[in-house]
Amino acid sequence: MSNTKSSRADVAREAGVAESTVSRALNDSPLISDEVKARVRAAAVELGYVLNRQAAMFARNRAGAIGMVVPRYASFPPFSRAYFPAVLDGVVVAAEERGYFVTIILERENTTAEMLAQLVSGRSVDGLLFTVTPAMYDRYEYLDAEGLPFVFINNYHDGMFGVDSLPEPGMRKAFARAVELGHQQIGYVAGDLRFKNGQDRLAVFQKLCSEHGIVGVVCDGDFSRTSGYRCCETLLRDDPDITMIMTASDRSALGVLAYCEEHGINVPEDMSVVGYDDLHPAQDAFPPLSTVQNPIEKSGWTAANMIIDVVEGIRSEPTTVWLDTDYVDRQSTGIARVPRKEPA
Amino acid sequence: MSNTKSSRADVAREAGVAESTVSRALNDSPLISDEVKARVRAAAVELGYVLNRQAAMFARNRAGAIGMVVPRYASFPPFSRAYFPAVLDGVVVAAEERGYFVTIILERENTTAEMLAQLVSGRSVDGLLFTVTPAMYDRYEYLDAEGLPFVFINNYHDGMFGVDSLPEPGMRKAFARAVELGHQQIGYVAGDLRFKNGQDRLAVFQKLCSEHGIVGVVCDGDFSRTSGYRCCETLLRDDPDITMIMTASDRSALGVLAYCEEHGINVPEDMSVVGYDDLHPAQDAFPPLSTVQNPIEKSGWTAANMIIDVVEGIRSEPTTVWLDTDYVDRQSTGIARVPRKEPA
Repeated sequence: MSNTKSSRADVAREAGVAESTVSRALNDSPLISDEVKARVRAAAVELGYVLNRQAAMFARNRAGAIGMVVPRYASFPPFSRAYFPAVLDGVVVAAEERGYFVTIILERENTTAEMLAQLVSGRSVDGLLFTVTPAMYDRYEYLDAEGLPFVFINNYHDGMFGVDSLPEPGMRKAFARAVELGHQQIGYVAGDLRFKNGQDRLAVFQKLCSEHGIVGVVCDGDFSRTSGYRCCETLLRDDPDITMIMTASDRSALGVLAYCEEHGINVPEDMSVVGYDDLHPAQDAFPPLSTVQNPIEKSGWTAANMIIDVVEGIRSEPTTVWLDTDYVDRQSTGIARVPRKEPA
Repeated sequence: MSNTKSSRADVAREAGVAESTVSRALNDSPLISDEVKARVRAAAVELGYVLNRQAAMFARNRAGAIGMVVPRYASFPPFSRAYFPAVLDGVVVAAEERGYFVTIILERENTTAEMLAQLVSGRSVDGLLFTVTPAMYDRYEYLDAEGLPFVFINNYHDGMFGVDSLPEPGMRKAFARAVELGHQQIGYVAGDLRFKNGQDRLAVFQKLCSEHGIVGVVCDGDFSRTSGYRCCETLLRDDPDITMIMTASDRSALGVLAYCEEHGINVPEDMSVVGYDDLHPAQDAFPPLSTVQNPIEKSGWTAANMIIDVVEGIRSEPTTVWLDTDYVDRQSTGIARVPRKEPA
């Protein structure tokens, strides 16, 4: 379907127009009349003049693009959370290396599995990357049954493709540092437990408390800044002996910092704070946030390579690739203050 | 070319496979052998079974996607600067409303005008949005001569399409506040003057200094955090009577804040700082940054609608749409201290 038999000059001659008009007409320029456009297109088709990547991809039944599915929340724009740009950075770089484009797909509450399937079966994209997906999600089953290529980022599912990171290595280092600094009672702002990441990070927190003989106090959060702020208040009220608060996300940690700032609680002198993710806000927070480093960009990069492997038939055995987390100690963690015995 | 004459069942019968195999085969599932795939595709083509958006777009000579061109710097990932996610947010929302996808295109130093043109002429995308473009850029001329649809975001060019924002409304408010607070000597960290935004903001700074009888001291920056840090040092050394530093970007202002923090200069008691953009880091900075509000997300939204208008022939007269800036006064600005007469 692609060929180089005819040149632009041939098309210009056939259509009776200038060479530059050929490009403009085929590119649907508003400067060219519809009549001329029709004549040029007819000549181009007649002569088999195709400089059309889409046509070539069509011939191969490929879109040449991978779709990155991003949730469209009502309350904030999709890329205003540092997580999504970080994933996208990994995805676009890997896709470019492999010669694919990245197409952004906004997923709304009313986006059905059929609509997602149609994106692939209709060859808008060759495969899908899911960036944020709840633990229970029947769309996966549908897409899987249809044989459509898709990869989870920061989620995992038996018999499906995914890239995720292990919370334990980074959280273990955070605990080692906490113990070293003398912390014995640690509050935890949990993530949204409808997500496996939320569940797994909480489970690791509890396991590590138990291993180290630390009193862990959990507050139900949802990864948001608001939940960090609210949980900080709850934790300090219910357990004033807490000297450190760990969280399931940097955003929640920023909420904890905001609560402390507004209530005259000095970080880290009165309270140590540990985030999770090491996204951009962490380093610029005040004080700069100690946090578990989650390789989010690398997850995007690895997942993009994985979906392209699947699309190209290089990889066919569903698997989850696990990346390691790490920990970075900045200025939001310090030596545990002597616990107060009376309520703060 | 698109039709609904044949059903999946027809294709399954013709190819002698199960219906579910039809989807899997057409979707290039790794679970289906190449032999079966070939048979199913042949049957689908034979029966004119097309559930193919790409085919429909091909028939209309449309990609159904707009390309957002993002510079690929060597030193940092494309979306790690808050500017690009903010533009992208506006672009994806507008594109979705109009039924278009957004494809990310990384532009490297060796990306030629011909390569960009090929993306459109080859129908990978229907038009291009340029997010960051220097003032002098011969590629525009080439793309324009080829009649390819493209729109500048935060840049403008006679006879071409663009969306930009006027620095003066927001900077005028910033100056009014500065005067109110008693500032009479103001340092300015200029942006990169290879960009019209850098030039225009500097010109407005100088004009407003002159209008208000303020002594303005300019340091050459480049929008980066590093340049803010460096210029803060230079400005304070060369002109210790400065009581406020304005910048051409929030990132530069963060560099100024970092310098002050490290050198025991209290913000805003000893030094007021004003940023430009109001991107996410501004609000979370310490202290929260007073800054000129640049409607970046709205620029992306407006530009995406503009390129789709051009692609669809709704709009054909090249123009620049100008949005207004505003100013938000946060905690990095305060009453001017009494100027020191001896070097700091």
